[in-house]
Order: sequence, then C-alpha cells, then structure tokens
Amino acid sequence: MAEKMRAVVLRAEWAPKPDFKLGAKDIEFKQTYLGSKVWRNPVVAVEEVDVPEPGPGEVLIEVKACGICGSDVHMAQPDDDGYIWYPGLTGFPAVLGHEFAGKIVKAGPGAINKRTNKPFVGGEDVCAEEMLWCGRCQPCADGYPNHCERLDEIGFNVNGAFAKYIVVPDRVVWSLDPLKDVYKGEDLYLAGSLVEPTCVAYNAVVQRGGGIKPGDNVVICGGGPVGLAACAILKRMGAARVILSEPEAGRAEIGRKLGADFVINPLKEDFVQRVLELTDGYGAKLYLEATGLPTVVYPLIEQCIWEGRGLNSTVVVVARADAKMPVTGEVLQVRRAQIVGAQGHSGEGTFPRVIEAMATGMNMLPLITKKITLDEVPENLVMLRTDRNECKITCVMD
Amino acid sequence: MAEKMRAVVLRAEWAPKPDFKLGAKDIEFKQTYLGSKVWRNPVVAVEEVDVPEPGPGEVLIEVKACGICGSDVHMAQPDDDGYIWYPGLTGFPAVLGHEFAGKIVKAGPGAINKRTNKPFVGGEDVCAEEMLWCGRCQPCADGYPNHCERLDEIGFNVNGAFAKYIVVPDRVVWSLDPLKDVYKGEDLYLAGSLVEPTCVAYNAVVQRGGGIKPGDNVVICGGGPVGLAACAILKRMGAARVILSEPEAGRAEIGRKLGADFVINPLKEDFVQRVLELTDGYGAKLYLEATGLPTVVYPLIEQCIWEGRGLNSTVVVVARADAKMPVTGEVLQVRRAQIVGAQGHSGEGTFPRVIEAMATGMNMLPLITKKITLDEVPENLVMLRTDRNECKITCVMD
Amino acid sequence: MAEKMRAVVLRAEWAPKPDFKLGAKDIEFKQTYLGSKVWRNPVVAVEEVDVPEPGPGEVLIEVKACGICGSDVHMAQPDDDGYIWYPGLTGFPAVLGHEFAGKIVKAGPGAINKRTNKPFVGGEDVCAEEMLWCGRCQPCADGYPNHCERLDEIGFNVNGAFAKYIVVPDRVVWSLDPLKDVYKGEDLYLAGSLVEPTCVAYNAVVQRGGGIKPGDNVVICGGGPVGLAACAILKRMGAARVILSEPEAGRAEIGRKLGADFVINPLKEDFVQRVLELTDGYGAKLYLEATGLPTVVYPLIEQCIWEGRGLNSTVVVVARADAKMPVTGEVLQVRRAQIVGAQGHSGEGTFPRVIEAMATGMNMLPLITKKITLDEVPENLVMLRTDRNECKITCVMD
Amino acid sequence: MAEKMRAVVLRAEWAPKPDFKLGAKDIEFKQTYLGSKVWRNPVVAVEEVDVPEPGPGEVLIEVKACGICGSDVHMAQPDDDGYIWYPGLTGFPAVLGHEFAGKIVKAGPGAINKRTNKPFVGGEDVCAEEMLWCGRCQPCADGYPNHCERLDEIGFNVNGAFAKYIVVPDRVVWSLDPLKDVYKGEDLYLAGSLVEPTCVAYNAVVQRGGGIKPGDNVVICGGGPVGLAACAILKRMGAARVILSEPEAGRAEIGRKLGADFVINPLKEDFVQRVLELTDGYGAKLYLEATGLPTVVYPLIEQCIWEGRGLNSTVVVVARADAKMPVTGEVLQVRRAQIVGAQGHSGEGTFPRVIEAMATGMNMLPLITKKITLDEVPENLVMLRTDRNECKITCVMD
Repeated sequence: MAEKMRAVVLRAEWAPKPDFKLGAKDIEFKQTYLGSKVWRNPVVAVEEVDVPEPGPGEVLIEVKACGICGSDVHMAQPDDDGYIWYPGLTGFPAVLGHEFAGKIVKAGPGAINKRTNKPFVGGEDVCAEEMLWCGRCQPCADGYPNHCERLDEIGFNVNGAFAKYIVVPDRVVWSLDPLKDVYKGEDLYLAGSLVEPTCVAYNAVVQRGGGIKPGDNVVICGGGPVGLAACAILKRMGAARVILSEPEAGRAEIGRKLGADFVINPLKEDFVQRVLELTDGYGAKLYLEATGLPTVVYPLIEQCIWEGRGLNSTVVVVARADAKMPVTGEVLQVRRAQIVGAQGHSGEGTFPRVIEAMATGMNMLPLITKKITLDEVPENLVMLRTDRNECKITCVMD
Repeated sequence: MAEKMRAVVLRAEWAPKPDFKLGAKDIEFKQTYLGSKVWRNPVVAVEEVDVPEPGPGEVLIEVKACGICGSDVHMAQPDDDGYIWYPGLTGFPAVLGHEFAGKIVKAGPGAINKRTNKPFVGGEDVCAEEMLWCGRCQPCADGYPNHCERLDEIGFNVNGAFAKYIVVPDRVVWSLDPLKDVYKGEDLYLAGSLVEPTCVAYNAVVQRGGGIKPGDNVVICGGGPVGLAACAILKRMGAARVILSEPEAGRAEIGRKLGADFVINPLKEDFVQRVLELTDGYGAKLYLEATGLPTVVYPLIEQCIWEGRGLNSTVVVVARADAKMPVTGEVLQVRRAQIVGAQGHSGEGTFPRVIEAMATGMNMLPLITKKITLDEVPENLVMLRTDRNECKITCVMD
Repeated sequence: MAEKMRAVVLRAEWAPKPDFKLGAKDIEFKQTYLGSKVWRNPVVAVEEVDVPEPGPGEVLIEVKACGICGSDVHMAQPDDDGYIWYPGLTGFPAVLGHEFAGKIVKAGPGAINKRTNKPFVGGEDVCAEEMLWCGRCQPCADGYPNHCERLDEIGFNVNGAFAKYIVVPDRVVWSLDPLKDVYKGEDLYLAGSLVEPTCVAYNAVVQRGGGIKPGDNVVICGGGPVGLAACAILKRMGAARVILSEPEAGRAEIGRKLGADFVINPLKEDFVQRVLELTDGYGAKLYLEATGLPTVVYPLIEQCIWEGRGLNSTVVVVARADAKMPVTGEVLQVRRAQIVGAQGHSGEGTFPRVIEAMATGMNMLPLITKKITLDEVPENLVMLRTDRNECKITCVMD
Repeated sequence: MAEKMRAVVLRAEWAPKPDFKLGAKDIEFKQTYLGSKVWRNPVVAVEEVDVPEPGPGEVLIEVKACGICGSDVHMAQPDDDGYIWYPGLTGFPAVLGHEFAGKIVKAGPGAINKRTNKPFVGGEDVCAEEMLWCGRCQPCADGYPNHCERLDEIGFNVNGAFAKYIVVPDRVVWSLDPLKDVYKGEDLYLAGSLVEPTCVAYNAVVQRGGGIKPGDNVVICGGGPVGLAACAILKRMGAARVILSEPEAGRAEIGRKLGADFVINPLKEDFVQRVLELTDGYGAKLYLEATGLPTVVYPLIEQCIWEGRGLNSTVVVVARADAKMPVTGEVLQVRRAQIVGAQGHSGEGTFPRVIEAMATGMNMLPLITKKITLDEVPENLVMLRTDRNECKITCVMD
C-alpha cells in the first residue's frame, strides 16, 4: 500500500459555461485550456494523498520550500458566478504549487542528472521548471519549449509541490549545487524556490527583450515578483539606472534592495517626466510591462519613447492581459523601437544562468516577505486575494 | 554668370496654423518639420534656375531619371484649407525629386568615390540616398543615420532631382557600376532610380525586420512601391511563399512579376483564412504593414498570428500613419511575436547590397509603369492624387 | 516470431588499440566514441534480420530511399592495420544508412506526428534526423541538440535505413507532406533522402554562419554533397554570386545546376585572385570550408579576407579535420571577421525550413548521380573508397 | 601671431627600408601606414608649438589629463637598426597623446555638441575618440567607423593631446557631463582620460564578442589596461566569475579592484585546470586574448573549450600580433565555438555607454598608478620600455 503524505489539493466542479466548446487538448471532467470557463466552486484543503512513485526518467523530490504564485490564488478564487478566475490550463483535482525546491530522494529508471550527466543519486538539492514541455512536438524540436504544443504544468494540471513529495521528469530538474557556497540550511531552499519566478523575469528581459548593454537605462513597470526580479537581473546586467514604477511603498522598498536605483510612484508623480529626468532626456533602452494594465501603462511608455532622444527601445510585455494596447506605429518608426511578448521560463540556458547568477551575488531572498507552513497555505491563498502588502509568501516544509 | 537649367520647383506660402509653434529645427519662412501645419497654396511649375556648383565634398550629377514618390504628390496637394498634405520636413521653394540616377559631371574639392576610395572622376553613373544624414550627431555617430538629428532631405528641404543637375554630398552617393553588365542605356538609369525606394523596403524587411531564413513564409500587406519591392527582396531571400495582399489588379500583376507567389484580394477574400490556407496553418514569419491603414490591417495580421501554429512572427510597420493599432499583448506572448517600426534607407550596407542584388538578377523595372518628361512632372503630380492604376511614374531626362 | 527483412549490416571486431581507454560513454564490445581506435576488420553484407517493433513514442518506417554518406564508406573501410577509418561514435553490428525517406507503417504508443500534433497514422511520408538527441541533457534542455551529451546516431550505433524497415523515435521524424505537390513517386523519396545532408549544410551556413543578406557574395570550398547543398541554400538566400571552388568537373557541373554562379578550379587557377576578381575586390561575406583540408584552404581564405575590401566575413568550418589551421588574429581584427565551427543538423527549425524550401523551388535532386538497389550497397561502399566521379549514390528500395 | 604652447613632439627621419613601397595612402616624408619600415631615429621632446585654431566643425580643447598608451612608447622606441617599433599609421613630426580629457574653450563654425544637439559653448568637459573616422567612405557609411578607409589617428598622424590644447572634429567628441556627479576636480579628467582605453575593451567584449548574459563565466588573458578594463565591463555585465590570467602581482591586484573574482598566475599554475575548476568543469562563455602572445595563449584557451562541458564559447582576439594561432576546427565544431577579431572603439554607442557606466558605478581610476607632468612624459616613455610595475601613467596638465 502506498505511503501517504499531506498536500494542498484544489478540487472544483466541471461545469462548462454555455459558450464553452471542448478543445482539442481538453479532456472532459478532467482538464481544459480555458479554466475560467469550466471550473466552478473551487475548494482548497490540506489532504492526505499517496506519495507518488517516480517512473522511467522521473525523480521523486522531497519538497523543502514552495512559494505561492498569483496564479495559485486565482485558481482558488471564485468569481461572482463561482467560476475560478484563472483562465488557462487546469486539471483538477490537483496538488497546487510550482515554485519549489527540495532534495532528490529517489530516481526512476534512467533518470539523469543534468549537472553530472549521470544517473541521479539521492541527496541532490534541486529546483524545477514549472513547464513540462514535451520535448517532441515541433516547437520543442525547434528550440521553443516555452511554446510546447503538448504542455503540462506542475501545480495546474499535474500534481504540484505544496506537498511532502513531488514527482517530476528529469529534464526539467536543475541542481542547486552551485548555491551551496552562499546559502545554507533553509535559505538554500528558499533561494531555490525563487529560481522559477526569477527565470520568468530573465526570460522576459534577457532572452526575449534582448537584454541590455552596460550603460543602458531600463524602466520596470510593476513591482510584483516578476518586475522585482527584473530589477535585480538588469542591475546585474549593467543597467546605468534601473527605474521601477510602483505605487506600493513595501514593493518599492524591496525593489531598492534588489537593484532599483530609483522608484517612481506613478499615482503621485508624472511618470513620463520622471523617466525623462532620470535618463537625461533619453528615455530607456528597455521597458518592462509587468503590471497587467497595458492600456494604462503602454501609452505612458510610448510617450517616454516618443519624447526621449534615445533610439532602439524595446518594450517587453510579460504580464498577461487580453486588453488591447493602443500602439502608434509612427513612434516605433521614428524611434527605431519594438514591442515583444514574453512567456515562460524554459530553454535557452535560463535556469542554469539564473542559478549561477544567484550563486555569485544576485540575492533574491528579499522577495520573500512571509514564511508559512503547509497548513497555512489555504488561508494565505484567500488572504492574497486582497492583500497588497506581502510580496512572496513561501511555504517551508517541516 | 551661372548657367541655367530647367527644374520642377514647388513654392508655397509660409502660413502657420494658430496651433503651430516654431520648433528647434524650424526656420521662419524657410523650413519646418511639420509641413502640413505651415505651408499653404502650393504651386508646382517648371522653372529656369541656376545650375548649382558642388562645394567641398560634393558632386554635381547630371540627372538621367527620377521617379515620382507619393510624398512628392502630397507636398504638392492642398487640403480643403489650402494646406499641403505632407506632414514632415519641408523647406520651400525647393526643386522636387529624390528617386534618381545620373552621371557625375563635376566633383567639388575632396569629394571621394566610395567605390574606388579615390577622388571622383567624371562619368561615374550613380544614384543617391534621399536622406542627408549629418554624420556628426549622436545617432549618426552611433550608427543610426536613418535617425539623424540634423537631417536634410533631398527634394524636401534641399533641392532635388527633377532638374537637369543636382548637387549632393559624396557620402550619400553610390555607384551604379555593378549594374552595367545587366542594364544598358536608359535602363541603367531607370534601374538606378529604383534603388532608393527598394532600399526603403530592404531596410524595413531585412535590417529592421531581421529578414527571414530560406523556407519561411511572408505576407506583404499593400502593393505600393515599397510593398512590391519587399516582395522581390523576400523572394530573393528565400521565402517559401511570398503572399501579397492587394486589391488592385494592376498592382497584383506587378507583384507577381516581382516575386509574389500568391496575391490575396482583401476586399473579396477572407485574408486570415487565405493566409492560413497558403501557409498550411502556420501563418507567416514576417508581416509587412505597407498600406498606411494599420487600424484595419493589424487586427487581421494579429488574427493570423494567433490562429497560426507558427512562432516568432515579426510585424514590420513601414507605412506612415499616426493611427493607433489595437495590439493584444497576449498574442505576442503566446506566439513569441514582435512588432517593429521601420524608417529610412541609409546605413547598414543597404544601398550597396540592393545594387548588388539588382546586378545579379533582382529586376525591379516592372515597378515603372509610365515614363514621362520633365515638363510632364507637374501634371502627373496632380493626376496621381486620384490615380490608382500607375505604380511608379518616372521622369526620363532628355 | 518476428518477421524478417533484408538489411546492410556492418560487423567488426572489438580490438582496442593499446592507447585506447574505455570512455565514459563507451560500452565494452558494443559501442565507442572513438571508432578508428577500436574496430577492426569491418565486413559489410546484406543479411536477414528481424523487422523491428516500434516502442512507446517510436514509429516503424518502410524505407523507400537511402543515400550513401562518406561516413558509411569510412566505417566500412579498413586502414593498413585493419582498423576502420571512421573515428567517431560507432556500435557494431549495426545496419548502416541514415540519409533516408520512407513511409510510416506503424506507430508505437503515444508517438505523435509533429505535422498534425496528433498521433501518427499510417501512410505519412517522412524523413528523419540522423542524430538521436536525448532531449533531456543540459545541451538539449538549453536548445543545442546538435551537442547532446547522450547522443545516439542512426546507422552508426543504432540500426539504420539500408533495410526494408527502420524504427525511430517520433521526435526526429519530419513529414514530407509539403513536397508532394512538386515530387511524385520515387522522386518524393529521393528528394526526402536528401533532406538530411541538406540540413547539415543549412545548419552550417544559415544557423551557425548567420546566413547572408541579399546582395552578399559567398565562397564555398569543396564540392562534396554538403558544399554543393550550401550552394543551393545560399543562392536561395539571395547571394549575389555563389562561387564554388572545386577541381572535379563533374562536381563543378552539379554545383552550377544547384546554384553556383562561378566555379574556380583551385588546382588550375589562382583562387585568391579569382575570388577578388569575381567580387570586384571585396571578397565574400561567407566562406565555407567543406574540403577537410583546412591547412591548405584556410590560408587562401585568409588571404582573400585580408586583400578584399569587404568587412564582416564569416568563415564556417563544417568539414571534419583535426589539423590545425594557421589563423592570423590581425586579419580577423582588421577585417572584422570571425571563424565558427558547425556540427549537426538538428534543432532551430532546420528540418522544416529545408523541407519548405525544397517544396517551393529548391531542387536538390541533381546531387544524386546514381541509383542502386539494396544488394548493390556493399559494392558501392567499396567503390566509393576511390571513386571521385559520383556525387550522391542512393539506394532505392523495391 | 599665433599663441604658443608646450607640447610633447615626436620627430623622426623618413628613411624607408629597401623593401618598402609607398602605399596608396602614404605621403612621402610625411605619413605612412607602415611606421616601423620608414621612420628612424625618433626623438621626443617638449617643444613650443603654435596653439591650433579650430576650423569648421572643429573644437579647441584645453587638455586636462592624458594617459600614456603602449603605442606611444613604441612610436618613440628605436629597434637595433634605429627604426621605430610601432608598425602602423604614423606621420611625423606629431604631438603624441590620445587618451585625454579636457574642457572645450573654443568652437569652430558649425561645431555641434552631441549631448545638446546644439552648437558647442565653452566650458563643456569632454573626452574624444582617438580614431578620426572620415564618415564618408563605404565602411563609415555602412556603420563600421573602426574600419574607416580614410582614417586619421590623434597622436599618430595628427597632433595629439600631450599639449596645452588640441583641436579635434566635433563628431569624435563626447561630453563628460554625466560623470560630474561622481567625479570632482582632477578626478573628472582622470576618469575622462580612461574612457578611450575602456572603450577599446568594451568594443572587444561587448560589441564584437557579443557580450554575455548574467550568469556566464569569462576568462581574460592579460592584465594590461585593455584586459583590466574588460574585467570591469564583464563584471558589470553580470559575469558569474571573472577570471583574470596575469602573472604580475600588481596587475593582478588592480584586476581584483576592477572586478576580477579570481586571478590565475599562468606561470605558476596550470591555466586549463584552474579555469575548469573555477567554472565547475564548464569553461567560460567568453575568452579575451589580450596578451599579444596568441601562439602561447590560444592553445590553452582551446584546451579549456575542448575539455569544458560548456558550449558557445567566443574567443575575442584584441591584442595585436601577426603570429599565427594554431586553431583546431574540430574544437569549434564540437563545442559550437567561434573566434572573432576586435579593433577600435568607435561607433555602436560605445563611448556614451562607457561614460554612462562610469557615471553609475564602474570605477576605472584604479588603472592609473602614476601621475606625471607634461615635462615628465618623455622620460616616462623611455622608462615604460622596460617597466612592468606601472599600469596607466597619466599626465595631468597644470
């Protein structure tokens, strides 16, 4: 009989709205790519579940720390009609949690450790990608795992890491070995649990945004975890001035700790004027839209580009929103500018580079403002529906 | 006393609208960056003017052919209040004409021939950039002459090429020598006069759009000279399928001659459905907005990107328009897409590469649908206000 | 009992030389990364072997055509001490053959068709990569399958395609569906069998060499299949002049058919002088070393770069050789040049792009100079040890 | 009558060696591109010379600080036959000195200040490029001023900055205004005099080497000013580990101050083993050859690439040497590596970015190990022929 463990499980009813049609990758009563159109009355609870067993190419990880992500909150949050807020890929019931670190305790047949290029042995401290790219569809074969056509997602449609153990395929596992010189004990896993969200920011500003050259200025709109991580990454990459736009004082303070040289409160200050002042009239080389309010933010960014003397600005849109930004082509023309969209965190050496950067001075721990136990996860998911004070809340397993 | 020559001169009244403020680079009664806010009652006529004298670093070119550009038409076209349509940099009176080829007849002191890296000698057949980038401001020093802060423009605020002779600085002159094996007599100059507009397209799709790799598909929206030239360039660069969207049959036909594999009539066919059919459901790697109607065209392009399976699409906006395109960030994210603006034709080796491509098989002559004399330029400028049949009308000097 | 089929099998003795040490990935009596240090007395014969069965994620392909590669010849060729010439990864006995096309006849559980993103159904015409990248090691996860740390190779250490059937994993299979409009019957499979070697050239000049822009000149040194395929690809990508250096008249002729504008016979002509003449003194933007004689060829290329006026040349080294090229750093500095190494054909969208290019006009069939039956493979492997007349010899299955 | 000033003048005899032929850009008795083949018996002295007058587009700068470069030493150093060591472009007599900063005191007609895009006014603190690219030849027009075909060089064939005043064209002048917040008094000019050599390093590792992404490791071979500046730049760009290879303890110490995390003494330690140890077996993403001894250094770099697990290494060759490096193509292939040459410091936004980086925390002052007066320049040029203790010796004008 399988060993048992405690886990934070989300259950919901399969109750498709009238306009919902079962998609090619949807599975009735089980999984859909359009969560908010299907799942009703979500319930989150700590349950006893079976400890999973690693199959071929898989590993069993003892989870040590797992952060709460905004999407965890939205999966568990009903709207006025009882449907979950989260619009994307979901398959319930599922154990939540995907920003995690832990220790390998068992390896399935043939599971290899990328660090050693040998079979996994127990004891390796690791983190993992959230995206279970298939490695076989055309986007994967072409080198774009963030756009896998057969994606599974840890903590969304496969069981996640708010649990004692988790099973994941070896290909998405990354060793935290390089971090051991700088992070000891619990801090190693806390840092490890921040690799995933930091990689989302790295993918946005470095891989998709093309990064910067030392001496360039950058503007980050939005001090959520991704925006804040972008401050750290771009400061690390040689930004002359990292300018964070964020109204909340607590987020601003974390931004300063992570690398923001200046913080603009867009509700109290003139964003465009401040950006131009701080950049000596040139504007920034890279603008990150990380607020989720592109209809508000893009026109301001556009005005900075238009009025600034600098050329070659790149606007990276990382926050998800289906609103339409009003984009003036002429501004992109006159200023030699571009807009790119960023999604995911996989591939292109992002995970190993973020781990190396964290191992050599890029400290992301200020992102974590609160530590909780597994039992406290459900109530914190509720609290975060309204809270604006906490940044990253991280569950530390005992 | 200076020798005289005949030239097409545009004169207009300096009559600034009430909301116009003299800009930093504007010169009262002489030059403005906002033409349509200042110049009224344009008059175009063939006049007798002095043959210009080349100064240091300049050359005197005997013009052999000069094409009419849409901006020539708009400079000469009054709106209901008598103001010219063209909104940009203008200084009148000026000789019009900037898409030209001719023969060097005299060189000022120190003028060098880039082809030989020696002083110019008479007889070199040449064309020229339209943009007189200064070579000294920060954008020029940084390598972005298309964004020169002290730009002059041939045929806009300095005298152009609808004339027997023109003087231009050596740095914007390019030899047509490589074309001589394939184009003889008048054709050499006709081809030469097409280099400039072809470079606008090349700059858009190759330099700013990043070009394509052999086997990629492309969609060109708009069969004006720039869109048509883009068909030729991208076919040449290895496009699997060049798809042109253009309602006019004549333009469609020229597009086919230049390299379009398929033409969509967007007024009669479902653009999105056709693009997806022709690309086997993948959509295109590069979309060029060359219609000037981005609010109409962009949503269709966006739908192709969204519904197509392909990733990494780049939308290049080359047609000028100050309308706001409605851009869904999520589409750029999910499909790993980007939007870039393109302006100009200078720098990055664009002119020499276009000339080499034309010297080795890329035939642009089908763009020219009508040849006229200098005396016929004014009436053709008027005719083109309404005509949709002609593509490029080119003045051949006798 | 398993069905039987006929196949070209290579057998050899495991007889490691004294200086050979078993490497990390070597398996005694079975597989080594250093073929020429281990295998002795190769024997190639047509044998009766079991028809393989596709496992999970695998497909069974009925082979229709399979080309002979130089490495097939070298695996079967003993040196004076009886050791095989081929120095790389090998595991014997093995069915040879890796440049193949055929028809899917059976799919293992979960095998997906990249073209449809659905399970494979019988009848799909396909080709395949030769490199069985694992998709799980660090290079694979980072997007570099050509540098997989757990590579297997079809026809080298796993059974190949000189056989009635072959089993391969779905992730390396590519549909030939786009070719069906232009190639009928046998030609479809002949063209399909050329995809793999064409991809080696594409990876070299486009992916690693950075490609060219329309109007650039290129020089291809060596008219073997890879050099010849590079002629076709670069002509397709807009090369002003494709210059092939190749002494054999037959190869020269194929080069001209595939896209070479000029052929230099380096044994009879002054290579450097000819390159400079043909490029108007500029030299080429891209030089491909595809001869395997870098100590002879590189100094000539270097001289072209040094004496040419052009900048930004890239030298791509694709032919394998362990000789040391004498490289003058100053030439790379003064001419802003670079040298890159190219290996493999996988990833980065190379296979689908080559197939699309072949489907829309890039005809590689002139590469095939002789068609043979399965029974004739062994004798042709021997013949090719000395023959210089044939280009690609392709086995057509009956 | 012209005002007089004191300046360090180099005089030498025009005495071409028998094998010297006057080149296209050489001017008898005045200028040659092959200094060491022509100039004999160099004499350096402080002389009284006319204060120069700025012509059109030029400015007169009061020099405040000017560093000694290795090429200054070699121009003044006779070999056994009395010929100067320096092999390149030289025109004597000339005032030496090109790494300088100072204050604008007068502007010629039309000279513009890139910072303000307006005419220069006196009092602007500035530095300048050493390369007087013409802005009109093909390489300049194409965006490659470092490869100008009509180059003049400050302090080589035009008068330099070891003098009270210098005249330079506006296009190579860059404002030090951004530095004023962090550097006061003399330090402003000392920092300003370091911009030029820092730009040589920036051009090498960022523009030509492609830079790095945060988390990559780098190896700098050679702790001269360019190698040391590269340490600062790459640390700034997010290198996980900057590894400097340099035997001299003093240079090693400066390297550590500027950003080197580790220093290898290649005369006492096993370079390859140490690099692999420090990079956890991966090797570096970027290797800079800044020693001038490529035949010694390249084989070691190659071994690191070969034995390291990492891919995509770029070797940047910045030190000038005409020796031939033995390059194994197979290593470039197997490791997906490349070699590039780097020359110059102009264009691509290098100067403004270096100034911005220095204005926001990248402190280059540790490079200066000794400050001298104008009168001490000649004796220090002699001393530096043999000295290995000093790094940058800088003349501070009183």
